[in-house]
Amino acid sequence: MHFPLDKHIVDSICRQFGLRNFDELGNASIRQLAGVVRCIEQATDVEYVNMALGEPGLPADKIGIEAEYKALQNGCASHYPNIIGIPEVKKWGSEFVRAFVNLQRPPECILPTVGSMQGAFALNMLLLQLNPEKDTILFLDPCFPVQKMQCDVIGTRIDAFDIAEFRGEKLRAELEKHLQSGRIAGILYSNPNNPTWACLTDGELRTIGELATQYDAIVLEDIAYLNMDFRDPDRGNPYSEPYQPSVGHYTHNCIQMISCSKIFSYAGQRAAFVAIDPVLAKRTYPALGERLHNNGELLQSFAYVFLYALSSGVCHSVQYGMAAMLQAACEGKLRYVDNTREYARRAHKIKEIMLRNGFHIVYDKDADGREVGDGFFFTFGYRDWSGKKLVNKLIYYGVSAISLESTGAKREGMRGCASSIREDQYEILEERLRKFNEDFSQYDPYEPKDSYEVCESR
Amino acid sequence: MHFPLDKHIVDSICRQFGLRNFDELGNASIRQLAGVVRCIEQATDVEYVNMALGEPGLPADKIGIEAEYKALQNGCASHYPNIIGIPEVKKWGSEFVRAFVNLQRPPECILPTVGSMQGAFALNMLLLQLNPEKDTILFLDPCFPVQKMQCDVIGTRIDAFDIAEFRGEKLRAELEKHLQSGRIAGILYSNPNNPTWACLTDGELRTIGELATQYDAIVLEDIAYLNMDFRDPDRGNPYSEPYQPSVGHYTHNCIQMISCSKIFSYAGQRAAFVAIDPVLAKRTYPALGERLHNNGELLQSFAYVFLYALSSGVCHSVQYGMAAMLQAACEGKLRYVDNTREYARRAHKIKEIMLRNGFHIVYDKDADGREVGDGFFFTFGYRDWSGKKLVNKLIYYGVSAISLESTGAKREGMRGCASSIREDQYEILEERLRKFNEDFSQYDPYEPKDSYEVCESR
Repeated sequence: MHFPLDKHIVDSICRQFGLRNFDELGNASIRQLAGVVRCIEQATDVEYVNMALGEPGLPADKIGIEAEYKALQNGCASHYPNIIGIPEVKKWGSEFVRAFVNLQRPPECILPTVGSMQGAFALNMLLLQLNPEKDTILFLDPCFPVQKMQCDVIGTRIDAFDIAEFRGEKLRAELEKHLQSGRIAGILYSNPNNPTWACLTDGELRTIGELATQYDAIVLEDIAYLNMDFRDPDRGNPYSEPYQPSVGHYTHNCIQMISCSKIFSYAGQRAAFVAIDPVLAKRTYPALGERLHNNGELLQSFAYVFLYALSSGVCHSVQYGMAAMLQAACEGKLRYVDNTREYARRAHKIKEIMLRNGFHIVYDKDADGREVGDGFFFTFGYRDWSGKKLVNKLIYYGVSAISLESTGAKREGMRGCASSIREDQYEILEERLRKFNEDFSQYDPYEPKDSYEVCESR
Repeated sequence: MHFPLDKHIVDSICRQFGLRNFDELGNASIRQLAGVVRCIEQATDVEYVNMALGEPGLPADKIGIEAEYKALQNGCASHYPNIIGIPEVKKWGSEFVRAFVNLQRPPECILPTVGSMQGAFALNMLLLQLNPEKDTILFLDPCFPVQKMQCDVIGTRIDAFDIAEFRGEKLRAELEKHLQSGRIAGILYSNPNNPTWACLTDGELRTIGELATQYDAIVLEDIAYLNMDFRDPDRGNPYSEPYQPSVGHYTHNCIQMISCSKIFSYAGQRAAFVAIDPVLAKRTYPALGERLHNNGELLQSFAYVFLYALSSGVCHSVQYGMAAMLQAACEGKLRYVDNTREYARRAHKIKEIMLRNGFHIVYDKDADGREVGDGFFFTFGYRDWSGKKLVNKLIYYGVSAISLESTGAKREGMRGCASSIREDQYEILEERLRKFNEDFSQYDPYEPKDSYEVCESR
């Protein structure tokens, strides 16, 4: 195989997907890029080293599959699922949060969602309707870019800052600066962080929680990767220290989003739940009640209006699968942290290859100057190139990842996902990046000689 | 068992669900009412004759279940489903629309959704973003009330009229009156109609289609009950007349929503798809492109932005189940019209019981003066009572259904669903309605003697 790939083929496929130029390809959503790559693979017979999609690289947990079989046999498919979740999901969701995050969330505060994607979408909409003065979601960047796309779709105002520049003691002043606008309805972050894999410390979470209470903003805590800070060897034992750190210890104004996609490798089935602080759950909001013609209670409105309107609940068999896996995890039978530690090994090897071939890790330091750990995601850059430029160039070398620009990062580079790489692909990745580095360490093969019509370089 | 049920128990449960008075109970959403009824059943040990929830009363189709098993065995659960649908769903969705609606919808225009609930929600949001001047969905009432709740959640302006007063030739002038506002982005109806089971004729669909083109509004055609006009004995043969009538023959400005919930009794798994007219699919809208930072194409934006943001697609195994059932239906192996004809039998018996006990059918006539057929839903009323009052009274008699008020009906009454009644419940229903009619044909037991604090009567 020859790299760079044929420009005509690659560019025409980009155009088919509505990506007409450098900027549009550089800003392509993960799913668009995945579609483009799939097409190029078919057209060129070149398999990509695909690090764009954050897809689990392990098989789905069998306990979930077995429970789905059984539920289907028992006839669940013809009955609408209870919109608030089957009792088993509520019970074991509640236990799971206690066992692994050390938070008390009664079963009534556990609500299944069609992936945390639906959870975040529904919560985003809900938060905007609680108080007419609060119309903004504050992102602690870098973030999962689709959560900002959700804001575009909904029409939410976005505020954001790159938290990497404000770790530890510096966080309070910066956060407060944003909250003082009075417009922040919600504060959204993921921890461990997608894309950087940095982990907020208890001290930082305390700051966030205290300020959320003070300014009455609601924290949306995305813990899709809970307990995957693999630097800590002792994570993953139910009902035991150390737990996943959480803002839930420091404020009632918070909602956790927990997905089965990564912890149980269950992304295909769209299984997740939200865990609402019980004090927050019972709060009533007059503006919400007026709009929805009800008493304005957060929990009831979220379940019976928002989740209902979005999809009439979560696939019935999936709820049984999810409940079974949560139960097994609580009982120590499903060791999800041990299982997913494999991702740290993969990330470590990929990062070594990157470093050998002219690339660098963009967000390399965590709080207190610690090295960022190895996990599901990592960030990488090349020379002083923008992330967009890297997307536009790497696509010709059979390597895909997304630009950090879409994550709100202040630093330039890409987000890579280590999860899906196969053993035989490390060598392939090394070859392609070596060729890339050879081509670009001296000159751009298409630049300035070529002038791009479509995916033009800059 | 004694009816009316204990007022204290019933009222306190209503309060728990945030339904504080006559109006709030009368306007309760279907899922709220279902929750209330479930609680009352537990508290009183009285099983309701539940006609509120439009749940299939037949077992889920086995072809779907088997295909889900197989897909789970093959490892689909760990892989994100393709956001635009697996190829099998796209192919057989396209075939199904050809076989049963006689419309040409290429596979690329078939997109799976998490039930038609998600389809309608996503399309509602999409339509509002195509053209800033068009901010309104026009409902041809009576409608499925949750689709108006979706508008409340989204913030969509609603326009509506009760089509029962404007059948046949009268439709054009009334429809045009609404379209002349210039604000109608979409026209939404279900056919057969939920709740009245009236069926739009080809002539009426032609009118709707012609005016949709003329005023550039997009028709959202909900055909969840396609080919369930059981008055016609010959429906349900693939690729044969008579087909499900559709506006798709008369305008490019339309999108069909097709759900597996009723035709395949698959409501629990949240399986549906939208079929976009191929000319409409390729249209580009500058305002949309500006907002979403893309080329503004309807199809691409809908799939890669809206469906992505809402749930990252549809549960993977469910897509395989759906594809298998669509294929079997096209091949004549899954006779969904024959299967669901059972609902007509049930509705017929329930309506007879109603008529014997002082109730009447509210929407009794279809176009051209024909009797409305028997099917999944029907409408009923009592004396000159409002629908709200009926909800508030019937709840004490172990019978649940929703008020027509929430459907936008101009006439007073209730929507009943015939699907889930068991053979042993006809007699129970007859007894309860007889007692109800005895109690109320002369006086209201709680009125005026009692003064309600909570679910007060009027």
